[in-house]
Amino acid sequence: MSENFTAMLDRLGEVAVRTGLNLASGQELLITAPLDAVPLVRRITEHAYKAGASLVTCFYADDETTLARYRFAPDAAFDHAAGWLSEATAQAFRNGAARMAITGANPSLLAGQSADRVSRASRASARVSRAALELITNFEINWTIVAFATPAWAAQVFPDLAPDAAVGALWDAIFAASRLTGSDPVAAWAEHNAALHRRAGMLNDLRFDALHFTGPGTDLRVGLADGHDWAGGSEAAKNGVVCNPNIPTEEVFTTPHRARVEGHVCSTKPLSHQGTLIDEIRVEFHDGAITRARASRGEDVLRKVLDTDAGARRLGEVALVPHSSPISQSGILFQNTLFDENAASHIALGQAYTKCLLDTDGQSTEQLAERGANSSLIHIDWMIGSDRINVDGIKGGVPTPLMRQGEWVVA
Amino acid sequence: MSENFTAMLDRLGEVAVRTGLNLASGQELLITAPLDAVPLVRRITEHAYKAGASLVTCFYADDETTLARYRFAPDAAFDHAAGWLSEATAQAFRNGAARMAITGANPSLLAGQSADRVSRASRASARVSRAALELITNFEINWTIVAFATPAWAAQVFPDLAPDAAVGALWDAIFAASRLTGSDPVAAWAEHNAALHRRAGMLNDLRFDALHFTGPGTDLRVGLADGHDWAGGSEAAKNGVVCNPNIPTEEVFTTPHRARVEGHVCSTKPLSHQGTLIDEIRVEFHDGAITRARASRGEDVLRKVLDTDAGARRLGEVALVPHSSPISQSGILFQNTLFDENAASHIALGQAYTKCLLDTDGQSTEQLAERGANSSLIHIDWMIGSDRINVDGIKGGVPTPLMRQGEWVVA
Ligand SMILES: [Zn+2]
Ligand SMILES: [Zn+2]
Ligand SMILES: [Zn+2]
Ligand SMILES: [Zn+2]
Repeated sequence: MSENFTAMLDRLGEVAVRTGLNLASGQELLITAPLDAVPLVRRITEHAYKAGASLVTCFYADDETTLARYRFAPDAAFDHAAGWLSEATAQAFRNGAARMAITGANPSLLAGQSADRVSRASRASARVSRAALELITNFEINWTIVAFATPAWAAQVFPDLAPDAAVGALWDAIFAASRLTGSDPVAAWAEHNAALHRRAGMLNDLRFDALHFTGPGTDLRVGLADGHDWAGGSEAAKNGVVCNPNIPTEEVFTTPHRARVEGHVCSTKPLSHQGTLIDEIRVEFHDGAITRARASRGEDVLRKVLDTDAGARRLGEVALVPHSSPISQSGILFQNTLFDENAASHIALGQAYTKCLLDTDGQSTEQLAERGANSSLIHIDWMIGSDRINVDGIKGGVPTPLMRQGEWVVA
Repeated sequence: MSENFTAMLDRLGEVAVRTGLNLASGQELLITAPLDAVPLVRRITEHAYKAGASLVTCFYADDETTLARYRFAPDAAFDHAAGWLSEATAQAFRNGAARMAITGANPSLLAGQSADRVSRASRASARVSRAALELITNFEINWTIVAFATPAWAAQVFPDLAPDAAVGALWDAIFAASRLTGSDPVAAWAEHNAALHRRAGMLNDLRFDALHFTGPGTDLRVGLADGHDWAGGSEAAKNGVVCNPNIPTEEVFTTPHRARVEGHVCSTKPLSHQGTLIDEIRVEFHDGAITRARASRGEDVLRKVLDTDAGARRLGEVALVPHSSPISQSGILFQNTLFDENAASHIALGQAYTKCLLDTDGQSTEQLAERGANSSLIHIDWMIGSDRINVDGIKGGVPTPLMRQGEWVVA
C-alpha cells in the first residue's frame, strides 16, 4: 500500500487509542481483531504503549478456522463455547482493562451454513459472554469499536471492483466516515462530540413519552423507558474515562420501554447478521413484543433470532440519525452495523443500555425492567430511517415534529 | 511454497493432533502460536475438528508488538502480566481442554533489551502462569509442542543462507527430526515410542541412587529423587489420554534429588533463553544448589535466572540422549530447547515433573520436596552431553557404565 495509506492507518490507530479509548496510563488493553488486521493492531499497540498501557493483548479470529469447524466438527460442537475465555475477558474488565474491538468480518461468511448450527453456536457464545458484555454495555470500563477493511468484507461491499480496488474503496470510506481525513482528527472528533451532546441534551430537555415513526410501510409508536436518557458521541465510563465507544458514530439513542411499542415497521436497509443478509424485514409490535415477522431474504435466520430468548422480540434501543449523515450520503451499504446504523434511524432488538437510564444506582434488574429496560442475550440494530420517514416526539398525547423526510426539524 | 511443502505441513498437523495430542472426541483444544504459524494452525485446526474437537482456540504472539512494549511502555509495565488470561488457561485445562504449543520464536528477539526488564517481565509472567503450568507438567491433560520454521528463527539458525533458503533448510530439519519423512509417520512414532519406553524401563529396573557425568570440565554427581521414575516418548496423561508431549523427542529423563547434586559441569551447547544466548556455562553444585556460575556470554541473564526464586539454582530434571541421536547428527544448533535438548544429555534448572516420581497420589508439596522434587517458577534445560561425556549409574556406591563417549553401553 502507499505511504499515504500507512500514514492513514497510523492515524486510525492513534484516534482509536486517544479518542476511541482515551486509554489511561497503566491500563491494560484487550483487543479482538480479524487476522487480516495485524497492521492496524500493531499501530494501535504502539499508540497504546505510548499512552502508558501496561500490557496489550490481542485475540485474533480466523475466518478459515471458523469455517473448518462448520465443515469438520461433530454436530454437538455447535452447542459449545469457550466459557473459560469469556469469563477471563470479564475478569480483565473487572481488573480495569480497556476493550477495543476491530470489526471487519466477512458479512457472508456463514451464508452457506445451516441456520440451525449458526444460531446454536451464536446462542452458546452469547450465553457465556453475558457477564463480559454487561460490563461493556454498562460502561464499567472504557471501550471502542473501529474498523479494518478486510479483503472479504470489501468484496461484499464492492462486488464490481477488482479485489485491490475494493479494499482501497472501503478504506477510503472508513477513513472518511471515521473523520480522519482533515488536518486534526482528534480536534474534529471533539467538535463532532459537542454536536452530538447538544442534540442529546435537547432531547433530554423535552423528555418525550414516545417517538412516532411514520412513512411508507411504517407506523410505529416507540414508548420510551421511564427516566430514559439520550446519549450520543463520547460517554463517561464508570472508571472515570470518557471514551468514544463507536468510531464512526452519528447517532443519538436512548432506551425504549420494553412493553410500550405498538404498530408496524419495515427495514430500510438490509441487515447483515452473523454471515447472512436479512432483507426487507416487516414486523408488527403489540404491547412491546413482535407478534408477526417477515423478510424477503433470511427470514429463517430472523425467526431464529427472535426465538433466542424472551427479550429477543422486544426493543433495547431506539436511535435517531439524519439522512444527511455523511455515512448515509456515501451511499454505501457497508453490511456492518458499525457503519450502517449510522446511516439511518434504527431500533435494536434485545438488550438495553442501562447507561441510557437516569438514576439506576442500586436498582435491581427487576426494577430496571419495570421502568422499561429490556434484557436479552442479543442486541441487533436494524435500520428503519430514510428520506421518506417522519419522526414525532409525543408528550402527554401531543406530537412535536422532530424529523421530516429524514432530517432534523430543528438544526 | 511447493506442493510438497503443503503436503508436509499437513502431515505435521496430522501428527501433532494424532500422535502429539491424541486428541479425544469432544475435547476442546487451546493452541498458542507465533503469527507466522497461521498456515500450520489451520492444518492443525482441521485435523482437530476431524478428530472430534468441540472448539479450537488459538492465541497468537506477535514479535512486533512484544518489541513495541520494550520500546514504548512505561517501565512499571514490566512487572505486570495478564493474570486473568493465565487463570483462564488453567480453567480451560480443568474443564478438560488439550494444549498445543507451536514454537518458533526468534531466539534473539530480546537480545537488545535490558536484562532487568526481560527478567522482570519473565518473572511476572511465570508467577501468574504457575497454576496452568502445573496442570501441564503434572499431565492433568494431554499436551504437545511442535515447531514452525519462522523466518526470524531460520535466519538465526542459518545466518549464511538467503532468507527463503534458510526457511527451507529449517523446515527440512524440522520435518526430519519430527519423523515425518517416511511413508507412515504415525507408525514411525509408534516404533520410536516403543524404543524410548524400553530404555526408560531398563533404567527403572536398575533404579540408581545417582548418575555420574564425567568429561572435559565436568565431574558431576546427580542424585536421583527417592522413588524416581524414568520417562520418555509417549505419556499417559491423568485424563486417560496417551500423548507425545514433545515432537520431536529423543530423551529419557527423570527427577533428580533437589539436595543431592555435587560437583561441576559445563554446558556443551549454547542455551537460548528469552531472546538471548547464554554460552559456555560453567557451574558448581553443592548440596544440590549452584554455588558458582559463569558464562562466556549472557552471564548477566544467567545470574538473573538463578535469582528467580529459591528453586531456580537447583535441578528439576536430568535427561539422557545419545550423541548419535538424529538431531545431534544433523549438526544444527537450533537455538530452541525443543530440538537442542534432544541433541545431548541435559539437566534442567527449576521445576520438577512429578510425573517422574512413583506413588505421588495424596502426597503434599512438602512430602514431594522431601523425596527430592524441586519447585520453581522456571524450568530451563541446558545441554551437558557430547561425544566426550561418560555417564555411570551409581547404586550402593557401585558404578555401572551407562554411556561411553556419549553412546549407550547397552544398545
Ligand atoms: Zn445504535
Ligand atoms: Zn445498538
Ligand atoms: Zn528434557
Ligand atoms: Zn526439560
